Amino acid sequence: MTENMSQTDAPAPDAAAPEVDRTGLIAREQDVLAHPERYRILTGDRPTGSLHLGHYLGTLQRRVQLQDAGVPTVLVIADFQVITDREDPGDIQRNVYEILKDYLACGIDPMKTVVFTHSSVPALNELLLPFLSVVSLPEMERNPTVKSELAASGQRVLNGLLLTYPVHQAADILFCKGNLVPVGRDQLPHVEQTRVIARRINDRYAGGREVLPEAQALLSPAPLVLGIDGDKMSKSRNNFISLSHTADETAKLFKKAKTDADRHISYEPDTRPEVSSLVLIGALLSGQEPEDFAATIGDKGGKALKDAVTEAVNEHLAPIRARRLELAEDQAHLRAVLRDGNERANALAEATLAEVKEALGMVYY
Amino acid sequence: MTENMSQTDAPAPDAAAPEVDRTGLIAREQDVLAHPERYRILTGDRPTGSLHLGHYLGTLQRRVQLQDAGVPTVLVIADFQVITDREDPGDIQRNVYEILKDYLACGIDPMKTVVFTHSSVPALNELLLPFLSVVSLPEMERNPTVKSELAASGQRVLNGLLLTYPVHQAADILFCKGNLVPVGRDQLPHVEQTRVIARRINDRYAGGREVLPEAQALLSPAPLVLGIDGDKMSKSRNNFISLSHTADETAKLFKKAKTDADRHISYEPDTRPEVSSLVLIGALLSGQEPEDFAATIGDKGGKALKDAVTEAVNEHLAPIRARRLELAEDQAHLRAVLRDGNERANALAEATLAEVKEALGMVYY
Repeated sequence: MTENMSQTDAPAPDAAAPEVDRTGLIAREQDVLAHPERYRILTGDRPTGSLHLGHYLGTLQRRVQLQDAGVPTVLVIADFQVITDREDPGDIQRNVYEILKDYLACGIDPMKTVVFTHSSVPALNELLLPFLSVVSLPEMERNPTVKSELAASGQRVLNGLLLTYPVHQAADILFCKGNLVPVGRDQLPHVEQTRVIARRINDRYAGGREVLPEAQALLSPAPLVLGIDGDKMSKSRNNFISLSHTADETAKLFKKAKTDADRHISYEPDTRPEVSSLVLIGALLSGQEPEDFAATIGDKGGKALKDAVTEAVNEHLAPIRARRLELAEDQAHLRAVLRDGNERANALAEATLAEVKEALGMVYY
Repeated sequence: MTENMSQTDAPAPDAAAPEVDRTGLIAREQDVLAHPERYRILTGDRPTGSLHLGHYLGTLQRRVQLQDAGVPTVLVIADFQVITDREDPGDIQRNVYEILKDYLACGIDPMKTVVFTHSSVPALNELLLPFLSVVSLPEMERNPTVKSELAASGQRVLNGLLLTYPVHQAADILFCKGNLVPVGRDQLPHVEQTRVIARRINDRYAGGREVLPEAQALLSPAPLVLGIDGDKMSKSRNNFISLSHTADETAKLFKKAKTDADRHISYEPDTRPEVSSLVLIGALLSGQEPEDFAATIGDKGGKALKDAVTEAVNEHLAPIRARRLELAEDQAHLRAVLRDGNERANALAEATLAEVKEALGMVYY
């Protein structure tokens, strides 16, 4: 759900073969769109910098579509997650507001969607305690994302916050009774862990009554977007086109993008990943099929491809970037949006925590 | 600090040889009594039933003495700790009020001492997150109390709440900037862990500035009190004399107490543990040296010893038990005391959490 479990980390699911899910783990998109009021989406990002084109194409656009389709949505800016894998939290305050500007500029509407920082919601964080009581150490250690995050962090030993972060993510999802979590396929274990926690809390402490919902994953056809170095686009690899870059910066960055020696431009992701990623970006942002976008370049080579992609990106992002600059001028508005989101998140968290504590018998007056 | 780390679990320290503590881990009692205003005690209990004679002689009396000596005191009723080692929390609400009655009846003064339930203080619980970021999994696994609690619980695998409970105890201590923790010697690793967490939070996130104090342990000459079966007096062994027992119940229980075949009563803890524990109880509650109390029984045998101990216990506890019965009639007062304690604890926790979040840069408006 957050960058750690972002869709852009996932291999693109095969949209032609919708999975038959007998466990209920995976939600059907047609059901979500037909009955948006039955769902509440929880998703979000780690505040480690402003969001990039990979986030935009992978998750941000989709969040706005779902929000506008009427699905109640809660977006967590997961600030405590920043210190799961680094000792220096960086400029978290700045990074939180960068992400908030990205959200609002892309069309997240704070009248419809709750945007909050989870450190600002103590009752959410308190849920970590009962949740930890129903999860074993071996279960936490088996989590594949915890293992890969540890390897990627360069830290020698697993700290307690990284170890327990999937349990804390369950609190992020369940504090608002979120029941729909947009994720990539590789992040399904997180949603499964959240379902297990909800079921155990309900069974062990509430006699089987549904205090917490069993959330479902919403798989998305998230495109795999590469960075200018040909590796996956990622904040940590510093190979990204940011929503906050100017048109000129974007052009300069795309000039450096890796391509190959074949002047004929085609869409062949398996054999020409770098060229195909550029084609895909151009196609998605100009509303064409990748093959058609490639055909418009034909034999004109890598530079023409980069120019065309730059134009598509800058044209598509122009209104978003303009709005982003306007927002940057109105810090009072941004503060008010975050403060309001945190107030609403606190109200949701306090209600859910009260129900969990009632199930536990921790009610004293 | 709580039952898990109660002084009554500790071997009696050798009062004749005060330890020279070069690290600052152990506080000097004479300094505490000379400068009570420099200290803030944090201690407490798990709400698994009303307290017994072992608690009274081991910790409760001492807490009242320190409170009355002017040391600011905070008492946590550690309700989340109940589900660290059992699936059924029992009647937590009832058990919380049983302990609260014990505290007040023994002389804890809610005008001087803050009594609170930690589940009622979300900002305290939120501290668990930054604290977990500075503690490694191997450190948590090495904790000797976690190991022994797991063995004692009969649970097969370590759950996340038992694994992390020493870190949560650090939050119990540090949320109010507690800097003095009365413990038995075997619980020193918990205090050391709390010091390590405070130091790392200060160093890593606050550039060495003291946001959190390095707490000190206050070792107490806690007597080893045996239950009526000759084993250590303990709630889980059901071998205890409770503060809530009547005088008649107390007499019946002491009649069953284990002694030995020698009719001459003496105080020889190493060779005659059961008889010596009875002598010690009688001595402590009648204000005599154990040898003197034993001499008053002489050769009159086990029954006379039990009668004398029963009389000493019932006489000493009579005003406490009477007060306890009065309190039981005034649930509104008990609720008000707990509500007030929780409000004060929330104010303390919110102030400390705000400082920790400021150090982390998690300040948004």
